[in-house]
Amino acid sequence: MSQYASRIAGSLSSPHKLRLPGLSGLAGRARTPRRVAMLSVHTSPLHQPGTGDAGGMNVYIVELARKLAAIGVEVEIFTRATTGTLPPAVELAPGVLVRHVDAGPYEGLAKEELPAQLCAFTHGVMRAWAGHRPGYYDLVHSHYWLSGHVGWLAAERWGVPLVHAMHTMAKVKNAALAAGDTPEPAARVIGETQIVRAADRLIANTAEEADELVRFYEAERRKVAVVHPGVNLDRFRPADGRAAARARLGLPADAFIPLFAGRIQPLKAPDILLHAAARLLDADPALRRRMLVPVVGGPSGSGLAKPEKLQKLAARLGIADVVRFHPPVDQDRLADWFRA
Amino acid sequence: MSQYASRIAGSLSSPHKLRLPGLSGLAGRARTPRRVAMLSVHTSPLHQPGTGDAGGMNVYIVELARKLAAIGVEVEIFTRATTGTLPPAVELAPGVLVRHVDAGPYEGLAKEELPAQLCAFTHGVMRAWAGHRPGYYDLVHSHYWLSGHVGWLAAERWGVPLVHAMHTMAKVKNAALAAGDTPEPAARVIGETQIVRAADRLIANTAEEADELVRFYEAERRKVAVVHPGVNLDRFRPADGRAAARARLGLPADAFIPLFAGRIQPLKAPDILLHAAARLLDADPALRRRMLVPVVGGPSGSGLAKPEKLQKLAARLGIADVVRFHPPVDQDRLADWFRA
Repeated sequence: MSQYASRIAGSLSSPHKLRLPGLSGLAGRARTPRRVAMLSVHTSPLHQPGTGDAGGMNVYIVELARKLAAIGVEVEIFTRATTGTLPPAVELAPGVLVRHVDAGPYEGLAKEELPAQLCAFTHGVMRAWAGHRPGYYDLVHSHYWLSGHVGWLAAERWGVPLVHAMHTMAKVKNAALAAGDTPEPAARVIGETQIVRAADRLIANTAEEADELVRFYEAERRKVAVVHPGVNLDRFRPADGRAAARARLGLPADAFIPLFAGRIQPLKAPDILLHAAARLLDADPALRRRMLVPVVGGPSGSGLAKPEKLQKLAARLGIADVVRFHPPVDQDRLADWFRA
Repeated sequence: MSQYASRIAGSLSSPHKLRLPGLSGLAGRARTPRRVAMLSVHTSPLHQPGTGDAGGMNVYIVELARKLAAIGVEVEIFTRATTGTLPPAVELAPGVLVRHVDAGPYEGLAKEELPAQLCAFTHGVMRAWAGHRPGYYDLVHSHYWLSGHVGWLAAERWGVPLVHAMHTMAKVKNAALAAGDTPEPAARVIGETQIVRAADRLIANTAEEADELVRFYEAERRKVAVVHPGVNLDRFRPADGRAAARARLGLPADAFIPLFAGRIQPLKAPDILLHAAARLLDADPALRRRMLVPVVGGPSGSGLAKPEKLQKLAARLGIADVVRFHPPVDQDRLADWFRA
């Protein structure tokens, strides 16, 4: 993630990179930002990743914010309040503040209903901003298209650049739709197209994602920056090794353990692992004695419609005895699963 | 409609009426507004009422804007551009400007997908406003909940009061849902609730609608102003009388003509007229010779799913021979239908 932080900072300290059409008035102000307004409308960085709408993006935002703070860039993350007991602001780490914005009811609002709450969310962001001195935020960084629409208004209002990360793209998802998955709605495709036009900088995780932005959304190539997501090497490291991790997790020392970790939804295709495991067992029945297939994560998104689908698949494939379903775990525990 | 105009002006010239919490800073500025930003996101005042999403609200907005302009209040109506050939601004009448805002594709965007376009629409409104001197608009008047959300942001941004008219309310519609009609979505209920809280003044058409605002949406009674919609008496008047109108419309001079005029959707219940006509014919078969039931208007909204439903009902009731379907007509022609 530190590569990301330095690239972002780098982009901004070389003003020509962000001097895009319509932003010429900002040229003189370009500099390393001191304070970033980060937008994460539909999922909170305080949520446990691995279930519901919280996953890799939450980890990404938290780690990025920490690293930015570590190099002296303050970050405020705006997210939608989903319970009434949340304080308006929570310090996630030194220099990283999470602001809870009231926009719609705390419970019972599906992700599909969030577009109708974007004005309310923007209103909450503006209210937080109104309490500050002019020029408080130097940059808006939005994640996922819902946040992008709020970021579009906020960046224009504040006269600062909009940096956007799609995380996933509707057209790309729809072009490779998993069997039984629901296509992403037109509203999202349209929304993403507008953000591609409005953003000053688009962050792609890979060169392929950059190509997809250009091919599917007609992004201007010069707006797209490829920044590979990092891994927190303080956490995800060999540490005391496989044997110790297996002991901690109560796993047999000599087992063959292919793992799925992530939210259970068709897009992430945990079924492929189950099919592979079934084929392995067909090819070598002796393997059954020592194979274990942990699935670590909760149901999510379109997977929520049939949360028991994967269990049923395991039964149908005749491998229910080797598959173990585990609820989502925190990052330290997840590192142990990877070690094991 | 002139009653409306003078009431609005009256409300604003007595500042205590609009000095609501959070607006105390406006107290000294309260006055008859010189320029109103009117918001009509999902339907254009330039559209022919009687089909699709254009109906009574379009007539209401056009007539209100004209009357406000006639008493010296300039009106700018912001609506979503639905074809690429529209000029950015069109003068509807002296003092009434219609501004077309680009927000989403021109065609193929359903009303249900518009919530995702509210940030884009707000962006377009802000862009139009940015070209003006500060304090250009003195008041925001939004119509229907989609516009209300844009109005919420615009009014706060400009520091002016928000006047909102619901036109219809989801909770009220859902409480008296016509058979076979689809309930209004939760997103709309939530959106309306937020506008009730955010608006400085809510315009109800009737005392009953005012009660509904209080009962269903917990509106503060003092915020609600009842202003009965007017009728354009220059247009809807006896003129040269029934016989002349019938001659112009090609209707028999001595016929009995119960009329339905409006968009064909379950909520407006044109089926009741057909059932009533069938009963009349049952009771007095001789009536068949001289009865004619015109249905003037196009299919709309939830009626669009089954546009031929009313034709089928007429056939099933055995009165297809007396029912005549006519496409929507302009206001002058509509007055002739009423005369006839």
